[in-house]
Amino acid sequence: MRMEEEKILLAHGSGGRLSYELIKGLFLSAFENPTLAELDDSARLDRDRGRLAFSTDSYTVKPLFFPGGDIGKLSIYGTVNDLAMVGASPKYISISFIIEEGLPLRTLHDIVDSIKGAATQTGVTIVTGDTKVVEKGDADQLFINTTGIGYIPEGVDISGKKGQVGDLILLSGTIGDHGTAVLSQREGFQFQAELRSDCAPLHGLVEAMLEASTNINVLRDPTRGGLATVLWEIANASKVGIVIEEEKIKLREEVRGVCDLLGFDPLYLANEGKLVAFIPQKEAERVLEAMKVNPLGRDAVIIGRTVKDNPGKVLLKTRIGGHRLLEPLSGELIPRIC
Amino acid sequence: MRMEEEKILLAHGSGGRLSYELIKGLFLSAFENPTLAELDDSARLDRDRGRLAFSTDSYTVKPLFFPGGDIGKLSIYGTVNDLAMVGASPKYISISFIIEEGLPLRTLHDIVDSIKGAATQTGVTIVTGDTKVVEKGDADQLFINTTGIGYIPEGVDISGKKGQVGDLILLSGTIGDHGTAVLSQREGFQFQAELRSDCAPLHGLVEAMLEASTNINVLRDPTRGGLATVLWEIANASKVGIVIEEEKIKLREEVRGVCDLLGFDPLYLANEGKLVAFIPQKEAERVLEAMKVNPLGRDAVIIGRTVKDNPGKVLLKTRIGGHRLLEPLSGELIPRIC
Repeated sequence: MRMEEEKILLAHGSGGRLSYELIKGLFLSAFENPTLAELDDSARLDRDRGRLAFSTDSYTVKPLFFPGGDIGKLSIYGTVNDLAMVGASPKYISISFIIEEGLPLRTLHDIVDSIKGAATQTGVTIVTGDTKVVEKGDADQLFINTTGIGYIPEGVDISGKKGQVGDLILLSGTIGDHGTAVLSQREGFQFQAELRSDCAPLHGLVEAMLEASTNINVLRDPTRGGLATVLWEIANASKVGIVIEEEKIKLREEVRGVCDLLGFDPLYLANEGKLVAFIPQKEAERVLEAMKVNPLGRDAVIIGRTVKDNPGKVLLKTRIGGHRLLEPLSGELIPRIC
Repeated sequence: MRMEEEKILLAHGSGGRLSYELIKGLFLSAFENPTLAELDDSARLDRDRGRLAFSTDSYTVKPLFFPGGDIGKLSIYGTVNDLAMVGASPKYISISFIIEEGLPLRTLHDIVDSIKGAATQTGVTIVTGDTKVVEKGDADQLFINTTGIGYIPEGVDISGKKGQVGDLILLSGTIGDHGTAVLSQREGFQFQAELRSDCAPLHGLVEAMLEASTNINVLRDPTRGGLATVLWEIANASKVGIVIEEEKIKLREEVRGVCDLLGFDPLYLANEGKLVAFIPQKEAERVLEAMKVNPLGRDAVIIGRTVKDNPGKVLLKTRIGGHRLLEPLSGELIPRIC
């Protein structure tokens, strides 16, 4: 990375290409070790006493409350989901608040209530925490970090590097709901009532999938950067080509409307309650059926497959029969989406 | 806690009385569980697969670089120290950056270098991470969260609740170095060259102490809120009285000078490389000797003892023979000290 005169851009936090370059170019080379280099949603600490999963995320979403969720709920679900994406059962959570001086105590209380509800719902225990308060103007209301520990069952080995040629690619539901809901709330769009974040904990869905088959190669939740960026990352990590069909990808009408209106590509919008799975062909139907009986996988569908050709590339077969190469998100679409 | 019209104050993050009230009144009651209720520097996850220690801290220190350290070093040492305070060997660290748009990449690079050095020095592995970027003005340069996992050796049972009547209280060195160093750097004091943070990893010192005796009841590092607040917390958690002697507490001349000049009480200033230990009388001398041969415990000294009278109170016997009751820090002395 060029260093002098360069500054951190919003896009360095987008989850897209610049995030990837910052992580590869600065963090990975500095903190070099094989566990970190996996770059999965959770670190897998297999080498020690069982199979621990360990994951961290800071939440800076703006506004703090949005249709379908709030920063508290998001901070629990998000970390629960990252643990679930390596097949782990979420167990312990640490929580750390960075609060701007002057935040109404009522607001903090409401968010804490939401955290409590989300923790109870997902069965995680908040075992340790930290609170910092910074002067007015030095932060925007509230940032939350959660870090989670989960346990990975025997026989489960899920990683973004494990996609195999011939895997089918499953998507658990519609895309773009979270991104459009937060944006519309933030900007005060008139049509916001119709938009709602999909913010949900995915560990139950993953458990149901693993009951159908432990032979799942990759799981990933397409948050920042959206479906396209996540697929591109997996294609690169697994060194396979990916072909997906646009017509299989479901979009709620309201989301399609916002995207048409504002020129957003839903493939790059953040989701907070969806996952993609790479599964060997012979197991895929069984897992798909298991997903469909779970409320969070009701709209699950096979959207494509991995191929030998063009490793590292993601090809979208468009509705009208064309082909489009999907690049990772460049720049920043919507800052502070999570 | 009264809720309506109340706002979060800087003092809610001071580590003193208001922090305590926020934690007890809001977080503990919402997230109620016995592990969290221990309120030690790390959670001890004894009930699962061995003896895991788990600790989180967000770092918001201002300025990012100060004499003797920087936010990167602090973010590793701080979490290593929290793990060490339950007797754990630090092992894995997660790191999460909240970056203000526009931060020079060179600054981030220098801090990452410092993190790398601190991780190597302390033997922890950075296994997972996260990066968020917020718009200019929505954060002050850089906040870092680290969360750590460590393993507690068999036979070690250290907690702020375990202080026993008759324990001797050991302090590992001088106090007030970190607080005065950060303050002087921030305010551009002329005498800053003489002040230097004590920022250091304490796990090696703790290991040496545990080799001398595993019979250590309490360990705590007096960071925010200082020595007085930490002793008050232990007195309350352990339901013992504490008597300490002012003349035993060591202060560097430069620190004393700043305190005299600015009216700070060094008992309430933050330290980042010191610990207090509560140890049964018959083992205390042995542990003290072990501390003194470690560079970070060279100035270790017995500063007092626990007593049956006045449980929950901390009595300071002053140099001139008087007595002073030490309350926890009220208000905020120096914001963003860590």
